[in-house]
Amino acid sequence: MSEHGGAGQHGRNARGGVGVSGIGEFGLIGKITARLSYGPTTLLGPGDDAAVVAAPDGRVAASTDVLVDGRHFRRDWSSARDVGHRAAAANLADIAAMGATPTALLVALCMPADLDTAWAEELADGLSAEAATVGASVVGGDMSASPTLTVAVTALGDLAGRPPVLRSGARPGDVLALAGRTGFAAAGLTVLNRGFRTPRLLVEAYRRPQVPYQAGPQAAQLGATSMIDVSDGLLADLGHVSAASGVAIDVRRDGFEVPRQMADAAQALGVDPYTWVLAGGDDHALAATFPPAVVLPSGWRPIGLVTDGAGVTVDGSAYDGPAGWDHFR
Amino acid sequence: MSEHGGAGQHGRNARGGVGVSGIGEFGLIGKITARLSYGPTTLLGPGDDAAVVAAPDGRVAASTDVLVDGRHFRRDWSSARDVGHRAAAANLADIAAMGATPTALLVALCMPADLDTAWAEELADGLSAEAATVGASVVGGDMSASPTLTVAVTALGDLAGRPPVLRSGARPGDVLALAGRTGFAAAGLTVLNRGFRTPRLLVEAYRRPQVPYQAGPQAAQLGATSMIDVSDGLLADLGHVSAASGVAIDVRRDGFEVPRQMADAAQALGVDPYTWVLAGGDDHALAATFPPAVVLPSGWRPIGLVTDGAGVTVDGSAYDGPAGWDHFR
Repeated sequence: MSEHGGAGQHGRNARGGVGVSGIGEFGLIGKITARLSYGPTTLLGPGDDAAVVAAPDGRVAASTDVLVDGRHFRRDWSSARDVGHRAAAANLADIAAMGATPTALLVALCMPADLDTAWAEELADGLSAEAATVGASVVGGDMSASPTLTVAVTALGDLAGRPPVLRSGARPGDVLALAGRTGFAAAGLTVLNRGFRTPRLLVEAYRRPQVPYQAGPQAAQLGATSMIDVSDGLLADLGHVSAASGVAIDVRRDGFEVPRQMADAAQALGVDPYTWVLAGGDDHALAATFPPAVVLPSGWRPIGLVTDGAGVTVDGSAYDGPAGWDHFR
Repeated sequence: MSEHGGAGQHGRNARGGVGVSGIGEFGLIGKITARLSYGPTTLLGPGDDAAVVAAPDGRVAASTDVLVDGRHFRRDWSSARDVGHRAAAANLADIAAMGATPTALLVALCMPADLDTAWAEELADGLSAEAATVGASVVGGDMSASPTLTVAVTALGDLAGRPPVLRSGARPGDVLALAGRTGFAAAGLTVLNRGFRTPRLLVEAYRRPQVPYQAGPQAAQLGATSMIDVSDGLLADLGHVSAASGVAIDVRRDGFEVPRQMADAAQALGVDPYTWVLAGGDDHALAATFPPAVVLPSGWRPIGLVTDGAGVTVDGSAYDGPAGWDHFR
């Protein structure tokens, strides 16, 4: 699409790197697509008007998540590659939370004209590497100059013939189970916010979430009645399941082990670590409910129960810590 | 996904409207999704971790385009609904240019916290209405606060069992044909840029492109050897076809009729109207090449020829007007 003007700067930027305005849109797209690799679900990759992705069962799961510089990441806290991993993870986790296997990512990248081309290339490396962990590929995208660095990602996925696992299917008597971690990324963010760079375990968890992607399709196969990607905080996200399913959900604190590094950091920073564990976002754990007869495989651990009623409680009581995130408040 | 902070303002914004920070992300998402309607390809709409869209032939065509406030649109020149129509059109046209029928849109909307909620709602109306013209639906999205209003759209589509029509298949001897208009949106943009609001034909063409979506699948059925969405300007986009196919393309000026309003505006503004017709973007015409034996149906008109060689010429000569757009220059 053409633009209205916006006199670009040419050549080298203030830091001596080659800014994107110096290489141009098509030059940068060429550099980036040359770095990508494509899995078997990519029937046609970047370079035409649209990509073509396999959708073997005649349906495609699709989700979009956007990251804004200064709101969802900071360039002094995360490398471009880290941001790529995290942007991909946020989207791939949404696909996994439907019980689907991710197949493809599309990326809309808006960036200041003086941004180093290396930043965009390393972002693409991170996106591509994270996608490759589940056999998915970056198949397309768009770029524009913008005063605000923004990474909008769309993920596609394959349900393999199964019905999608919705937020609305939890039933009283179901077991609530979790795959993956909670609180690690929030703890890492708190650490960075206070000016520290360690413990590495927490800071790295914030920079690159460790998402249990395979647990999503696994839960679907096991007959999970509901599932959600824990992106805004466990209690906030379970609130969506509770509301959509018309059930109450009680979370047990003893379902969580606070690792030593987190406990130490919490003590040093004067934070209740359960604030991180119960209300912290961005680890992209998967929370699912299962009929009580289901034997949970390793990777899924029970953390609570579904009952008649409404709302989310912790050990039977209302939780009085901070709630999840709302992006405009 | 959680955010790092960014103290939002609550309640009413400076213009007395309700800003998005006053209603919150989930409130606004609820208001918007309540306005949407869904076609038969939407198997699961907004409200869960991902949407589910029909992909009947086991493949999905997918494309992403982003619009940035002040670069791709101006809020004093286009209404929110106009921007929605245009953002949808840019993406749906990419799907049509593969020979596919659009099925779904996903939207990542970044907006200043004091933006009127009405703007976001009307944007969604425009996106949804444009999608509905081809039976597609807005099935999902994400929102974030951002200093820069940005609309990133991903479109999905169905190839109906046909191979995608690529940019790389044009062969010497093929006829170059066009469906839709060129130059109208560029003329409208020039008019607005000079401070005028008429002629309406041109200004409206800029605000809401009239895209010949059905011509895309039709061209594929007719055996088109290559096809492209004319978004950056006819000659620039044919340059992509020429390079990808390894052929020369000659465009005939007499393939274009300059309508009276465009000729009048060109004269009044001191512009060569063929600059608009040959190099202006944003009308989202479809340009395709066909074997010479194909009888072109109405809607497609011949505008040139494919020959051995390289590059794009006009009436046999190099074109010396402005080239197409590059988003960082």
